[in-house]
Amino acid sequence: MKFTVINYLLSFVIINVAILTVAIAGESERQIGYGRGGRMQGGAVSERSKEPIQPIPVSFDYDRAKVELGKKLFFEPRLSKSGWITCNSCHNLSTGGADNLPSSIGHKWLFGPINSPTVLNAKFNVAQFWDGRAKDLKEQAKGPIANPMEMASNHELAVSVLQSIPEYVGWFKEVYKDEKITMDNVADAIAAFEETLTTPNSRFDWWLKDYDDKLSEFEKEGYDLFKAKGCINCHNGFGVGGNSFQKFGIAKPYDKDTQTLGRYNVTKYEKDKHVFKVPLLRNIELTAPYFHDASTWNLSEAVNIMAEYQLGITLTAGETNKIVAFLRTLTGDQPSIIFPILPPSTANTQKPDRN
Amino acid sequence: MKFTVINYLLSFVIINVAILTVAIAGESERQIGYGRGGRMQGGAVSERSKEPIQPIPVSFDYDRAKVELGKKLFFEPRLSKSGWITCNSCHNLSTGGADNLPSSIGHKWLFGPINSPTVLNAKFNVAQFWDGRAKDLKEQAKGPIANPMEMASNHELAVSVLQSIPEYVGWFKEVYKDEKITMDNVADAIAAFEETLTTPNSRFDWWLKDYDDKLSEFEKEGYDLFKAKGCINCHNGFGVGGNSFQKFGIAKPYDKDTQTLGRYNVTKYEKDKHVFKVPLLRNIELTAPYFHDASTWNLSEAVNIMAEYQLGITLTAGETNKIVAFLRTLTGDQPSIIFPILPPSTANTQKPDRN
Repeated sequence: MKFTVINYLLSFVIINVAILTVAIAGESERQIGYGRGGRMQGGAVSERSKEPIQPIPVSFDYDRAKVELGKKLFFEPRLSKSGWITCNSCHNLSTGGADNLPSSIGHKWLFGPINSPTVLNAKFNVAQFWDGRAKDLKEQAKGPIANPMEMASNHELAVSVLQSIPEYVGWFKEVYKDEKITMDNVADAIAAFEETLTTPNSRFDWWLKDYDDKLSEFEKEGYDLFKAKGCINCHNGFGVGGNSFQKFGIAKPYDKDTQTLGRYNVTKYEKDKHVFKVPLLRNIELTAPYFHDASTWNLSEAVNIMAEYQLGITLTAGETNKIVAFLRTLTGDQPSIIFPILPPSTANTQKPDRN
Repeated sequence: MKFTVINYLLSFVIINVAILTVAIAGESERQIGYGRGGRMQGGAVSERSKEPIQPIPVSFDYDRAKVELGKKLFFEPRLSKSGWITCNSCHNLSTGGADNLPSSIGHKWLFGPINSPTVLNAKFNVAQFWDGRAKDLKEQAKGPIANPMEMASNHELAVSVLQSIPEYVGWFKEVYKDEKITMDNVADAIAAFEETLTTPNSRFDWWLKDYDDKLSEFEKEGYDLFKAKGCINCHNGFGVGGNSFQKFGIAKPYDKDTQTLGRYNVTKYEKDKHVFKVPLLRNIELTAPYFHDASTWNLSEAVNIMAEYQLGITLTAGETNKIVAFLRTLTGDQPSIIFPILPPSTANTQKPDRN
């Protein structure tokens, strides 16, 4: 009997040691896989930690209840007047966080004036929208809900729809401690969800972390050209873009679209005419058509247009191919989203209006 | 040393016994939870196995590759002319498999002529569409893609779009062994995905499996009324409906919609005018508005309309409340879907056309 008890206790020790061993192994694998951030094993700093592009961080603050609420709102058709259009309608997480249209289709099939930017990695943008008129994702989220050409609702209506549904009242109370739902909190929750929509682990990011075989020679030559030709001057950082405003047509006036004024609409400075936020190049192979005016669906052509109008150079076909090959290494893990289940409307919920 | 080895081996035995115990417990729980099908423990047949409503089966044949392909197609905007509308646009899995609109919004914001039925549990329908013009889900799936008021594409175009994307070519080849994608296989894969969209484990289904406390007395009285008043005559089986065609207006001509001819359009028999497939009542609390003409958003009112026009009776408010309480117990587990990631278009992919 005594032997059995000792045996029993010892078996626990063995189990626990086994569990600990597995846990430690897992942790160290994670450190190698994800946590190195350009540092080589043993603490030596990788040469590549000085590259002008940084790997997308794989860990971040995460408020589970808020993000889950934001996800529901991102897919919530009742935030639109018609009860049909959602954030995901134009920022489709199935297709690179964009709609792959020249410009978005909105309420009553109206077309927006500009190409929808991807929501993926949007947190790395210095500001939101092509003209930067929203300072952050929270401010951005309020725009389309009330835009008559997009979701065509208004903030008062959108909030009252949510307030009429007891499940939403409970979720908002859990996250924000308020009895009343506010547009500020709606936008805050959507932004919190959108902040999770990053795409780490691209082949290029692995290469930045010293996994040499993640890029081919051809792709590495593309990256070298990307730097040598000057693309890197604007397309750098976590998002490979998104952190500055630049005139479209630095080397040569951009004649394909002289109407869209961009940043000027926000600042009213003459110098900001045709100035736009530099788009992110992460997952660029997924988000055709390209540029604010969607003037091309072809990534090679987009690279050549940039060379011509921004850098004042002409690339050889071989150079373009290499740069495009490099750009395709920037596609990272797409967000894995469990499609949310939304609570039903109640008798107090404003009915959708398709007109 | 020898003691340690014995101890080590014994600990393995203990661990394995523990694992086995857990496994057996899990298995027996699963049998109780899912596998009983109306049979009580010990082999005695439950009284409730004779009820006219059957619990939704929780296991079914499942071709993983085909279902995964079908899921991608269900969420594939490029099956529409605009590159924007998907199966999910009108059969939204976030909102009970329907769009919660009077009738669906389609290409160029055209409105369909009839309320969109839910895709959830649609496999239990005797035929598809309100008029039963498609014999099964596969035949149904072909309809909206080519309907000018819905996705507004055509079968040739839809197939050529998929054929232009190498990932789809590979997936279709894996599932169907053909080099060429066909509309028949597209519809087959979508149907295979839709067959998985059942909603088992409603409280009512648990009650059918002898878990008495899953329903309140009030709800049970509602079910008794549902049977006693005659609702059960049409709303029975796995789907609580869906297995017959009936005239809307058996007891009294339905004067709110005299235009929609229903089954007559398929058969051209005079007797089939205003005859419709009996809708499923599973998850009915999620799929307002109700009836082919969406004439009410209120479930109590829907029950009263049925009583008046189909059964020729008037329910008391108390009876209606009880029946509605019973109907709310029919909401089952909603499908847990990982939002699919779709492959990018290529230079050969037909561009979306919003016009």
